[in-house]
Amino acid sequence: MAAKEFRLASRPSGWPTEETFDFAEVTLPSPEAGQVLVRNAFMSVDPYMRGRMNDVKSYVPPYEVGKALDGGAVGEVVESAVDGVVPGDLVLHGLGWRSHALVSQFNKLDPIDGVSPSHFLGALGMPALTAYVGLLDVAEFSPGETVFVSGAAGAVGSLVGQIAKLKGAKRVIGSAGSADKVAHLTRKLGFDAAFNYRDGDVTKQLAEAAPDGVDVYFDNVGGDHLEAALWSMNRNGRVAICGSISSYNEESLPPGPRNLHQILVNRLTVRGFIVLDHNDRFPAMIAEVGPWLAGGKLVAEETVVDGLENAPSAFLGMLRGENTGKMVVRL
Amino acid sequence: MAAKEFRLASRPSGWPTEETFDFAEVTLPSPEAGQVLVRNAFMSVDPYMRGRMNDVKSYVPPYEVGKALDGGAVGEVVESAVDGVVPGDLVLHGLGWRSHALVSQFNKLDPIDGVSPSHFLGALGMPALTAYVGLLDVAEFSPGETVFVSGAAGAVGSLVGQIAKLKGAKRVIGSAGSADKVAHLTRKLGFDAAFNYRDGDVTKQLAEAAPDGVDVYFDNVGGDHLEAALWSMNRNGRVAICGSISSYNEESLPPGPRNLHQILVNRLTVRGFIVLDHNDRFPAMIAEVGPWLAGGKLVAEETVVDGLENAPSAFLGMLRGENTGKMVVRL
Repeated sequence: MAAKEFRLASRPSGWPTEETFDFAEVTLPSPEAGQVLVRNAFMSVDPYMRGRMNDVKSYVPPYEVGKALDGGAVGEVVESAVDGVVPGDLVLHGLGWRSHALVSQFNKLDPIDGVSPSHFLGALGMPALTAYVGLLDVAEFSPGETVFVSGAAGAVGSLVGQIAKLKGAKRVIGSAGSADKVAHLTRKLGFDAAFNYRDGDVTKQLAEAAPDGVDVYFDNVGGDHLEAALWSMNRNGRVAICGSISSYNEESLPPGPRNLHQILVNRLTVRGFIVLDHNDRFPAMIAEVGPWLAGGKLVAEETVVDGLENAPSAFLGMLRGENTGKMVVRL
Repeated sequence: MAAKEFRLASRPSGWPTEETFDFAEVTLPSPEAGQVLVRNAFMSVDPYMRGRMNDVKSYVPPYEVGKALDGGAVGEVVESAVDGVVPGDLVLHGLGWRSHALVSQFNKLDPIDGVSPSHFLGALGMPALTAYVGLLDVAEFSPGETVFVSGAAGAVGSLVGQIAKLKGAKRVIGSAGSADKVAHLTRKLGFDAAFNYRDGDVTKQLAEAAPDGVDVYFDNVGGDHLEAALWSMNRNGRVAICGSISSYNEESLPPGPRNLHQILVNRLTVRGFIVLDHNDRFPAMIAEVGPWLAGGKLVAEETVVDGLENAPSAFLGMLRGENTGKMVVRL
């Protein structure tokens, strides 16, 4: 089977470019026992992939130069050497960035009426599990609390805010990087307040948006957003550290927030988490979020880019914040 | 009753000096109903008092210029208007920095054979409760874990390390600011390793002292110590933020650690706490630490300065790190 894939051409220093990627053609054999051959229908581009381009030990191994990239993908089984899986079945797996893949680790998916399979990469996939676990388990959100989420127009952030509202938040505040995104958060996604972090001091904008303080901060950004949140946190508040997109393309580590003493003064809990540790919560997430999505109570936004050949530019656009909601590539 | 007291002469900018303090004589009336008149025997000088000299809202109100300072003290009742309390009783209360005090909030103490009453300001007092709650409740220490404590020769730090060892720590590491203190930690207090943070890069020294990483970091210092600890923390490690003495005399807020992404990568929990919230654990602490102290299993160090008139220099010396263990003033 002739297949196409993207490889890491070289490790970027600072912002990646089109030259970071190599396009290659390969031939895939038939699946061995335990494998299925999948034709990918959708693949995901995610912020964490930028970290994997560095040669740094982290929670997932770095990409290797000259080897195919990988990431979340949904596809249709073409040929199967696994009992109970037949051609035509829909599966979620980890070998994106290619037209076809031989996979041995995958989840068979039950299609949901009226819901595009691409949502298993977003509102019913890893971003949803990240939002669900981070808000409910890591930050221990309770109904009646005020939630602030940064990167609120992104795949994870937009779900954090909506899940918080659906679970009874008193007030949900989001930050994003353009006036359009800010308008979208309050008009379409039900956020109570939102601001454009490019409009001025984040600390001041957050304090105005959260006159009664913040109980839960879901941090996708780090840096000035974390510092701002620490100033606004109420006593016994919780911060879930999910990402720090503000620093991913910095060549040296920027200094941290100046106000960590707020953790002491306000008895805060700051906790980092990795969604991979929480796969046991996948069924609970699907059971709760699935009906919200199917019933139209939850807006699942996607920015869909067509064509595998456009995956690098989709990835770069996502890093620059050009997407609203989950960025996916349709193959 | 003629009494003497120290007042805040003016708010210091940067390091306080002898001029920060005013010595005054006052006359105290007889106690009203609900009060006892106490002759103070010992008073405490603590790092948190420096913060109270600033006009900043915090977890305890700031000292007022021209008014008497306060803080932990142990004394003997001279005159009582409280049922069940008689002259000669020993009490722990919050009106130190003076020879005598009229107090309505106090704890009556049961003297322990062979244990100086001054220890109710240290190894059986607020520092002990701070160490006990921070290690066991906030950082959720488990037997078999490796513990790092900064400011390890101080009142709280020296108890954190010893309690960790007595509770089954695999390895206890301390940092301090002189070779004498470092020797004391390993030779007298049972620490497995210790280093002088003035000897060089804290991150490197800690990495050498903790080849298998750190599970619990008890932070009294902040700044470079917190950054170093974050590099050494093992997965699922916990950081209890108890103080940040490194920044108390800075006139502007220094930048925070550059490596907060370690919180995410290693799934860390960083939690601030204030001992005042945990008074309910006082009986449990006394029940566990009291027998260790009386039985000689726990070394309770004190630096005792004689004379109320020397309280300011004792306080300044404590800020400069001249004490080993709890610094108290004997009146």
